[in-house]
Amino acid sequence: MDFSFSYYIGLAGIMVFAISGALSALEHKDHHHDLFSVFFTGFITAIGGGTLRDITLGNYPVSWVRDENILWAIFVGFLLVILLPRILTKLRDELFLFDTLGIGIYTVLGTRIALDHGVNFFASALLGMISAIFGGVIRDTLMNEVPFIFRKEIYATACLAGSVLYIILNIGNIDSNWNLVISASVVVAIRVVAVRYNLGLPKIKLFE
Amino acid sequence: MDFSFSYYIGLAGIMVFAISGALSALEHKDHHHDLFSVFFTGFITAIGGGTLRDITLGNYPVSWVRDENILWAIFVGFLLVILLPRILTKLRDELFLFDTLGIGIYTVLGTRIALDHGVNFFASALLGMISAIFGGVIRDTLMNEVPFIFRKEIYATACLAGSVLYIILNIGNIDSNWNLVISASVVVAIRVVAVRYNLGLPKIKLFE
Amino acid sequence: MDFSFSYYIGLAGIMVFAISGALSALEHKDHHHDLFSVFFTGFITAIGGGTLRDITLGNYPVSWVRDENILWAIFVGFLLVILLPRILTKLRDELFLFDTLGIGIYTVLGTRIALDHGVNFFASALLGMISAIFGGVIRDTLMNEVPFIFRKEIYATACLAGSVLYIILNIGNIDSNWNLVISASVVVAIRVVAVRYNLGLPKIKLFE
Repeated sequence: MDFSFSYYIGLAGIMVFAISGALSALEHKDHHHDLFSVFFTGFITAIGGGTLRDITLGNYPVSWVRDENILWAIFVGFLLVILLPRILTKLRDELFLFDTLGIGIYTVLGTRIALDHGVNFFASALLGMISAIFGGVIRDTLMNEVPFIFRKEIYATACLAGSVLYIILNIGNIDSNWNLVISASVVVAIRVVAVRYNLGLPKIKLFE
Repeated sequence: MDFSFSYYIGLAGIMVFAISGALSALEHKDHHHDLFSVFFTGFITAIGGGTLRDITLGNYPVSWVRDENILWAIFVGFLLVILLPRILTKLRDELFLFDTLGIGIYTVLGTRIALDHGVNFFASALLGMISAIFGGVIRDTLMNEVPFIFRKEIYATACLAGSVLYIILNIGNIDSNWNLVISASVVVAIRVVAVRYNLGLPKIKLFE
Repeated sequence: MDFSFSYYIGLAGIMVFAISGALSALEHKDHHHDLFSVFFTGFITAIGGGTLRDITLGNYPVSWVRDENILWAIFVGFLLVILLPRILTKLRDELFLFDTLGIGIYTVLGTRIALDHGVNFFASALLGMISAIFGGVIRDTLMNEVPFIFRKEIYATACLAGSVLYIILNIGNIDSNWNLVISASVVVAIRVVAVRYNLGLPKIKLFE
């Protein structure tokens, strides 16, 4: 694995998130579904979590402002959605392809960036999770819905588990590219199992 | 045109956005309509987009934190709404005065600030648009509505067209004050024509 | 009073805000109420306003990224809510304990940080208020509700009064710890009186 492995994985994460966001705009019932809405929803979903992480860390310039390739990756995702909406919808529904890959990749890249900034472990784990989930949180909020993370089977918790695992393996001095692959795969695996078997965290009842 | 032309145009943009936001608070059905709500909605609408642009660019100190005049411009807009609500509402409805002027001015000033920071063209165009539309996006989201940009005739796309035009004219070495006037006017013109003739972008249908 | 007085008061403010946020997640009707939702809502409520203040000021590193104790204070608040939901709900409803203390403390600490950054008085007063109210604003927005500040009796205005008082006493050279206690108490007092007697600001009627 060469130096730029995590860079290309990052671009792939951006593109799958853009696809996931653009598809959700296409399906939203109160939504206009025009070209701008579809692009913009993909853009927000793709860059929201990483931008929030970067401005919280003071990590300037923010990735998509510095690196135009990120914007082109979003644009390619947008074009794919425009050209192949049915195929992509099917891939998403049957294989959980886009969003799940996206949160796996973003969790570990976000955790790594926080650690590189010398951030403590607790905050690094949270920032990894925030990188992964906040694009979707912002998207859902703009669409006037209760965010996904508050409604679904294990989601953010899978990210948190992945970022904690990344931190532990990092302390154990594992190669960072292998760590990326392993920890991202664990996020994806937890998420896929949670959806298949409809698993959630324990609920807390205030008024029985 | 002197050095400070864009400064005064910027203050005018702040004030018209504050008027637009304060008026929308006055008309909101679930809304309390007290003095604070009206002021705060105007404030958020006026500074939201520029603040998001500045923190994304790492352009510190953020404009309204650095320059108290921006806050006074918002306060004047707020006073006008309190004193002359009917006249301002009429001007808004018949001449699209406030919001449309605001997005024109913010688009070009935001694009210019991004270019001054050495940002690539693609991101600069998006940051110009974000400067213009996000005050309204945050306002609508706080009011628990699907943001304007997802519902209406051509809106954000007009801003994007204006910021692309600004970048092209800037490459062509046009005087930046003339560029400001021309590109902002194009945003306003596109928006006014779109509202008058009820024009939207092509829609994408997923399920026919 | 020693140097670290405001530090421990700040941690107390974090914890009461986390309790307030976690309790509101527990009671939300459309809400999943799982362990993650309760923790995350407490976290967002506790750090939202201060994080927005810090990234608006460019005050890096953001407090909870720099200081792990803040995250542990949130975690303790979360554990208390899990273990003692009924007692805490009762304390909140009868004594307005958590949110009201939180806004008092955050208002003055936020104003102080802005003044320490050399920010003008108008923006410092607004940043003090923003520190206090935006955790709740973000929480309400994520839960798809019109934020508290737009619906209730005097709330944000109490914070604004407290931050103006802090600035005035600061100009008068009062000891900053006493100023903290006095100005925060005034915020709490205004808020408690407003709730008890159902006081609001004057409303503005557009269409009589």
